Amino acid sequence: MLQPSDKALVPFVSVDDMMKLVHHIGIEPMLKGIADYIEADFRRWELFDKTPRIASHSQEGVIELMPTSDGEVYGFKYVNGHPKNTKEGLQTVTAFGLLADVNTGYPVLLTEMTVLTALRTAATSAMVAKYLAPKGSTTMAMIGNGAQSEFQSLAMKAICGIDSVRLYDIDSAATDKAARNLAGMGLNVVKCSTAEESMEGAQIITTCTADKQCATILTDNMIGSGVHINAIGGDCPGKTELAPAILHRSDIFVEYPEQTRIEGEIQQMEDDHPVTEMWEVISGKQAGRTNPEQITLFDSVGFAIEDFSALRYVRDNIKGTELFIDLDLLADPDDPRDLFGMVQRASSEA
Amino acid sequence: MLQPSDKALVPFVSVDDMMKLVHHIGIEPMLKGIADYIEADFRRWELFDKTPRIASHSQEGVIELMPTSDGEVYGFKYVNGHPKNTKEGLQTVTAFGLLADVNTGYPVLLTEMTVLTALRTAATSAMVAKYLAPKGSTTMAMIGNGAQSEFQSLAMKAICGIDSVRLYDIDSAATDKAARNLAGMGLNVVKCSTAEESMEGAQIITTCTADKQCATILTDNMIGSGVHINAIGGDCPGKTELAPAILHRSDIFVEYPEQTRIEGEIQQMEDDHPVTEMWEVISGKQAGRTNPEQITLFDSVGFAIEDFSALRYVRDNIKGTELFIDLDLLADPDDPRDLFGMVQRASSEA
Repeated sequence: MLQPSDKALVPFVSVDDMMKLVHHIGIEPMLKGIADYIEADFRRWELFDKTPRIASHSQEGVIELMPTSDGEVYGFKYVNGHPKNTKEGLQTVTAFGLLADVNTGYPVLLTEMTVLTALRTAATSAMVAKYLAPKGSTTMAMIGNGAQSEFQSLAMKAICGIDSVRLYDIDSAATDKAARNLAGMGLNVVKCSTAEESMEGAQIITTCTADKQCATILTDNMIGSGVHINAIGGDCPGKTELAPAILHRSDIFVEYPEQTRIEGEIQQMEDDHPVTEMWEVISGKQAGRTNPEQITLFDSVGFAIEDFSALRYVRDNIKGTELFIDLDLLADPDDPRDLFGMVQRASSEA
Repeated sequence: MLQPSDKALVPFVSVDDMMKLVHHIGIEPMLKGIADYIEADFRRWELFDKTPRIASHSQEGVIELMPTSDGEVYGFKYVNGHPKNTKEGLQTVTAFGLLADVNTGYPVLLTEMTVLTALRTAATSAMVAKYLAPKGSTTMAMIGNGAQSEFQSLAMKAICGIDSVRLYDIDSAATDKAARNLAGMGLNVVKCSTAEESMEGAQIITTCTADKQCATILTDNMIGSGVHINAIGGDCPGKTELAPAILHRSDIFVEYPEQTRIEGEIQQMEDDHPVTEMWEVISGKQAGRTNPEQITLFDSVGFAIEDFSALRYVRDNIKGTELFIDLDLLADPDDPRDLFGMVQRASSEA
């Protein structure tokens, strides 16, 4: 083949390479590192182009594009959400992402993001819990023991210092799986047979279930004062996990209100229900937790800036490793106006 | 490495493989084939999810995502437009694209689209000219002899049967390049030193210049009756090529009015200036050219459905070839809920 020029080549991180990167760095240091990048980007929130994700809905699920830019770097993520996939042996969520140079429009990184999204979602939850959870939290209830649960548990350990996780899932096989995966990772893991049991002694309650419907994973009477609720699973229109009464008792924190009002738990509330943007808490413009009795709720739906941060982290951390390949993604003729000539010349090489 | 399952692998067509595909099929048959796919998709226009492209503008250019879906297949293109890139030895436009299965959300094709976009843009122009250009057109004026010009010329030959192309560019080196590339391709090629000269005897006038500004490539007095104008270069806000007086004398045909009113030549006109949608002409719902004196104008900006058609064409035509590689893009654990376990198990393989 014709040898493409450097400009034509885009580093590509496969699933295999991403998993190797996790082990190369270590999962807890990597969760911490991604959380640091996300926190840094939340601090400069106002810089970013922000737009709600562009969703293509079908009966079976959704395919979304989530773009953003800080003016120098552009990033987007492709992600699907198909709850019925699990029954067919497929992932509910798969994703890949890209960074590009705003100045030239040329992509500079293409990477799998199924594994990376799991890491950034957990890193975001824990980074936020650092600001909102009661001081000295030791125990998390983890309700919904699917693909995200172990990442959530380890991020809360690495970033918030919890030492115990109490697992509950409507399907005990999922709980068994999560407990098995978390064994020997430095957490006290307790399998619970009801949601109520999982919340005993927990200062942090994480809900992460995957039904594409309004469910009531938490009812009002389950929730005592002084907890932090990390609500991950209510993340698209028609999909919520919490009883509205809980929302009325909570101080609600969100990523990007325009998107959360469509996709988050607060889709159940009036359009002007008060919420606090996390970037303002992190920047010191708004208070986070102000007293120990307060119920704080992070109504998390996942925002493009978090993916952007995770992509930046990967770009910076694959340097000097062999955990990527160069992909011949961009046509780069010697004379930019001579694309046709480049195609013609390829013929003699074919 | 762990062997990824078939579901985790996405066929990837590199620039090198795309160029080989062009030569494997032949450029004129490939232009015809893509035009057939585009025409077929214009006939079922109403089926598609249509949304104007999602653009991220900067001082230097634009990065766009162009998604669409026919309900069974989802596609999108990433494309940049940076006119100043040429001066730095880079392409003004680079692109890549993806098809996915709506039912599962899983990507099924990733491909370079810089070369493919050049092909589909030319195929669209020629497919439209087949409906709008005067019967028996033999000669095209090609104004702007950059990366798109040879593709336009060959598509008009293959699909509309022209036998002569008259080249003009403000930079005669570009004209020389295009003439050199088109030599021996079965066209009578004439290099011209003014735009007026290029239009002598031409029934089809194609404008394709790349300045990101309102330019006046064609003035009113240059345009006689009975021609078809194929205006390619006016394709983003603030970028046009034609004098408004020409627009007033022409019957204007567009891809998707909501997008063309923002990006096309008609951004110079009132918001309700009458236009005809090409899908209606192709479906027989609206007339195309009705008399030989009429000036028809295709105000082309490029629409997501054309990329979708081109992606479908590539997907169908790489089957049975070796002109792609399988990319390990999607995480696919044996148990979909056990993403963490998959990551953990990769450690023993690292």
